[in-house]
Amino acid sequence: MTCLEKRMKPQIKRTLSNFFFEYETPRKVLVRNKRVAVVCRIIQMGVLAYIIGWVFMYERGYHAIDIAIGSIFTKMKGVSFTNISGKERIWDAADFVFPEQGDSSFVVMTNYIATVGQKQDKCPELPDGKNKNKCMSDENCDEGKYKRTGNGHMTGRCISNTSTCEIYSWCPVEDDRQIPDPPILLTAENYTLFIKNSITFRQFNVVRSNLVESVNQSYINTCLYHPKTDPLCPIFRLGDIVERSGFNFSEIARVGGAIGVLIDWDCNLDLSIRHCKPKYEFYGLYGTAKNDKEEKPSLGYNFRYAKYYVENGVEKRTLMKVFGVRIDIIVHGRAGKFDIIPTLTAIGSGVGIFGVATVVCDLLLLYFVPERDFYKNMKFKHTEIPEEKPALPQSQTEKDLPKVTYHSNLCSRRSL
Amino acid sequence: MTCLEKRMKPQIKRTLSNFFFEYETPRKVLVRNKRVAVVCRIIQMGVLAYIIGWVFMYERGYHAIDIAIGSIFTKMKGVSFTNISGKERIWDAADFVFPEQGDSSFVVMTNYIATVGQKQDKCPELPDGKNKNKCMSDENCDEGKYKRTGNGHMTGRCISNTSTCEIYSWCPVEDDRQIPDPPILLTAENYTLFIKNSITFRQFNVVRSNLVESVNQSYINTCLYHPKTDPLCPIFRLGDIVERSGFNFSEIARVGGAIGVLIDWDCNLDLSIRHCKPKYEFYGLYGTAKNDKEEKPSLGYNFRYAKYYVENGVEKRTLMKVFGVRIDIIVHGRAGKFDIIPTLTAIGSGVGIFGVATVVCDLLLLYFVPERDFYKNMKFKHTEIPEEKPALPQSQTEKDLPKVTYHSNLCSRRSL
Amino acid sequence: MTCLEKRMKPQIKRTLSNFFFEYETPRKVLVRNKRVAVVCRIIQMGVLAYIIGWVFMYERGYHAIDIAIGSIFTKMKGVSFTNISGKERIWDAADFVFPEQGDSSFVVMTNYIATVGQKQDKCPELPDGKNKNKCMSDENCDEGKYKRTGNGHMTGRCISNTSTCEIYSWCPVEDDRQIPDPPILLTAENYTLFIKNSITFRQFNVVRSNLVESVNQSYINTCLYHPKTDPLCPIFRLGDIVERSGFNFSEIARVGGAIGVLIDWDCNLDLSIRHCKPKYEFYGLYGTAKNDKEEKPSLGYNFRYAKYYVENGVEKRTLMKVFGVRIDIIVHGRAGKFDIIPTLTAIGSGVGIFGVATVVCDLLLLYFVPERDFYKNMKFKHTEIPEEKPALPQSQTEKDLPKVTYHSNLCSRRSL
Repeated sequence: MTCLEKRMKPQIKRTLSNFFFEYETPRKVLVRNKRVAVVCRIIQMGVLAYIIGWVFMYERGYHAIDIAIGSIFTKMKGVSFTNISGKERIWDAADFVFPEQGDSSFVVMTNYIATVGQKQDKCPELPDGKNKNKCMSDENCDEGKYKRTGNGHMTGRCISNTSTCEIYSWCPVEDDRQIPDPPILLTAENYTLFIKNSITFRQFNVVRSNLVESVNQSYINTCLYHPKTDPLCPIFRLGDIVERSGFNFSEIARVGGAIGVLIDWDCNLDLSIRHCKPKYEFYGLYGTAKNDKEEKPSLGYNFRYAKYYVENGVEKRTLMKVFGVRIDIIVHGRAGKFDIIPTLTAIGSGVGIFGVATVVCDLLLLYFVPERDFYKNMKFKHTEIPEEKPALPQSQTEKDLPKVTYHSNLCSRRSL
Repeated sequence: MTCLEKRMKPQIKRTLSNFFFEYETPRKVLVRNKRVAVVCRIIQMGVLAYIIGWVFMYERGYHAIDIAIGSIFTKMKGVSFTNISGKERIWDAADFVFPEQGDSSFVVMTNYIATVGQKQDKCPELPDGKNKNKCMSDENCDEGKYKRTGNGHMTGRCISNTSTCEIYSWCPVEDDRQIPDPPILLTAENYTLFIKNSITFRQFNVVRSNLVESVNQSYINTCLYHPKTDPLCPIFRLGDIVERSGFNFSEIARVGGAIGVLIDWDCNLDLSIRHCKPKYEFYGLYGTAKNDKEEKPSLGYNFRYAKYYVENGVEKRTLMKVFGVRIDIIVHGRAGKFDIIPTLTAIGSGVGIFGVATVVCDLLLLYFVPERDFYKNMKFKHTEIPEEKPALPQSQTEKDLPKVTYHSNLCSRRSL
Repeated sequence: MTCLEKRMKPQIKRTLSNFFFEYETPRKVLVRNKRVAVVCRIIQMGVLAYIIGWVFMYERGYHAIDIAIGSIFTKMKGVSFTNISGKERIWDAADFVFPEQGDSSFVVMTNYIATVGQKQDKCPELPDGKNKNKCMSDENCDEGKYKRTGNGHMTGRCISNTSTCEIYSWCPVEDDRQIPDPPILLTAENYTLFIKNSITFRQFNVVRSNLVESVNQSYINTCLYHPKTDPLCPIFRLGDIVERSGFNFSEIARVGGAIGVLIDWDCNLDLSIRHCKPKYEFYGLYGTAKNDKEEKPSLGYNFRYAKYYVENGVEKRTLMKVFGVRIDIIVHGRAGKFDIIPTLTAIGSGVGIFGVATVVCDLLLLYFVPERDFYKNMKFKHTEIPEEKPALPQSQTEKDLPKVTYHSNLCSRRSL
């Protein structure tokens, strides 16, 4: 029986039993060096504090996160009364909200330029101050062309009394050179906006509405949102929204503007669902808010729409250039709940960072301490490869290893 | 030639050769202790099973994730026939869908209160049951004011036969005290909704439509969505949508309600793109669904819109208070594809967690096993700092280190 | 005074002082084996290069990421002139954009089928080529029923000259069997689209508009978007958008189509905010773009809307079947900024991966190198549990441990 055979027989059995019954743990040097030890402990405790305090407690690293899917319904209420050169008129929500069906993004009209009774016809182009539409003779008006800033197709004639080209268009042409000031519907400030918001955290199977437990029907009937006193009331005064987003109402009402209303949900679902409440925030969009000092291009917010009708068999329209407050309601929902995966990932990552602390301490110990060479000797054991089978390593390892194992290994090395 | 000079000369060369030709590996103790070893192996294999089974196979930790950008187009089809006190009327999609252009969020009218022929005028405010608008004399009606619940500007007169203030408003005032029951357009149940949904995973450069390979033109012409038999058919019966979201159709049709339709894409792009298919889910929004037992405030869904016309030179409007089913279609798309970064991150994190297992085992070995002190001695080597240059450490390290290295280090320590 | 008492007294003090003044560092073997060392260093440097190069520099693993909340306002400009059988007509933005208020998703009409003067009446159903609506006698027309593809309620009569059922409907019924070719508003190609986009990175408190520093009012007045020469100009020609998304304009104008305009923000907030600029991308939705070779079901984009009016006391409507280019503007904003948490997480994960490298090198060293048994002996120290208190371990550990510590431990082991 050769040495090889002896070894091979119980090999598999031994490997298995080794695997299950032997446990390997790194050998360590305990360094009794106050300076190094204290510095290292401080680094390690800093890392530990960071992992526990910041990752776990502040950032809630043990949380699985879900982003909400939200749905919004809005309803404006309010009435405005205008008296333009003796013509009284009342405006209600059906008149001043676009679109009408309660979308999350809508415009509240605060000012307008109405051009009543337009019909398809020929009429002179609008003379604007900058001479852009000016013409001296028919040659300036190319038939069948239209200008980017123009309102219709040029017929080729230059009208002498306005000094502009004649165009085929909806006539008369809208004259929007003067924006009504003060804005016609300045009382829009008192309109109220009711927001219904439903959010769904699919991962956690949670559906939640901004009409939380404390918001019941009688509260809704009377409340008005205020960040301090009524932070959960879903009814907002338009003037308040505008002021809180940094605009001046009379200014925004004149030329229009856009405001974002953010409904922010940050829910910890480890606690009772009752603590999952919305927060409302308001900010000016497109950098047009007052607190933005630089002058920005393309201020204001306006659009045109037409109301069509037939009069004496002729199709006509009333063109409205609407200036208004556009409100974009945005839901930002985020819920966290304890979950084993992110917890273990955070721990695993933390152990990794702990490893960094050890590396730093070792560098300190091995390169920056006066006794570094002593510690190097303690920490490292040098080997020279026994390529010429020297006597040295054999005698050296002998001291370190139990006799039994050593001999079996020696056997294998000799017989190979 | 001093000791220092001798050391400095080949220093850089040695450092480099050390770095490239020396490999350091931790020294370990192999502990032959069945209890500890078995416990540790179980912990380690649990960690390994968790990393492989859960992180890699179940959560697909090797996947880079992209969230879809989606676009939706909808089209309702259907016709309703109503006969209100002898007046027959047909309603088609252009009449009952708001807005008309096929948005992802829209309302299907199922009930309405129409107020035909409103014009700007003076008329008495609506008497409501709760005496909110009631007046006894002109003093109750402040001229020029309007109430939050009112419909217009008060003129200052109290109308005796209705006991309400006279207002300047769109007259006659809408009377919405009675919601038609049964709902006027109850046949809306049979309308069909066609959804086209396109999603884009930008990171993976994949564009996908809900009209997948198996959905061809002839299938679309005849199919109707059913979660079991036709889960990919993009045509939905309105009644089915309502029922599946937990509502009762005749109830929601009367007062209105909001429903979320979720198109859920969860794609594994390591497989063929053909397996990337949408799933449709339906749920009630705003907690108004039937399965929500508590009574919630602000039930229903309604909005007002006006159709304007000119009659004999007077602007009039037909005001519609529309009750309907609002449908919000939401896309939730998520695709995963193998990527080296998340794979390595998951492995790195897993190794970190493995480190936790080792820490636990070491605690066990060093503090809870009867032979703990023996193992402590095996694992740890103590050092006392040679602050007074004692003879002890020198002789102690001598045994552990090859002569060559030791002497070079001794040299450096003495000369510094 | 027993051995136990002696030990217990200064126990807590010693534990504390041990904890603070002792530092433990793993003992290592320095293996002077060129093959192993070089392979290991290469692996380690590869891992290091990956962590630094890829995770940190390319993927910016040290960045905290925030996703933008965006808001969009659009404005179309342009005029079209049509001459249909002598009837001249001009179309401006109020006529061809749906919805009118400048939403992020809108439709530009390019073609239409108008059915003027519909009123509630009885009329024959439209005969379609496929005989779907055909009837031979009154028995084919169930009174009070309606077909999924039909336009109204059947009255029960079969009209002989059209061979279709009589229906109660908006009459006359729309005839959409022929789509106008060439499209009526082919000049829509020259319309311009102005996009205002505001994004907010809440986490970093940054608000940004697509009208960046270099885009001032005078530039906006004259510029036109071009990916090379004017990549920041917010004004787009409709024809360009269509071409860049892979469609043919005359084709899309005829049957309609949907296009996604992506505004992509990828901002590194460690740099100046001026470098945070949008990129515009265009792509065809619903797989209808030219570069998609397979024929897909349900091409085109159309919807119907009605303009209501009252004529001689009868409610009428003009039904428009609108074909057009639907444009969905989508914001995809992502900002990164240096943050300590993701940095440490990336480092921790990197250290973990480094651990993998060490494991691989150890496997190499212990199983694939000819001198593997020698290294095994160097690396591992075997212990046999002193269950029968053998003399062996005691003498063995003696060599490894300083006398002082050893005796204190010996004491504790004996007295327990």
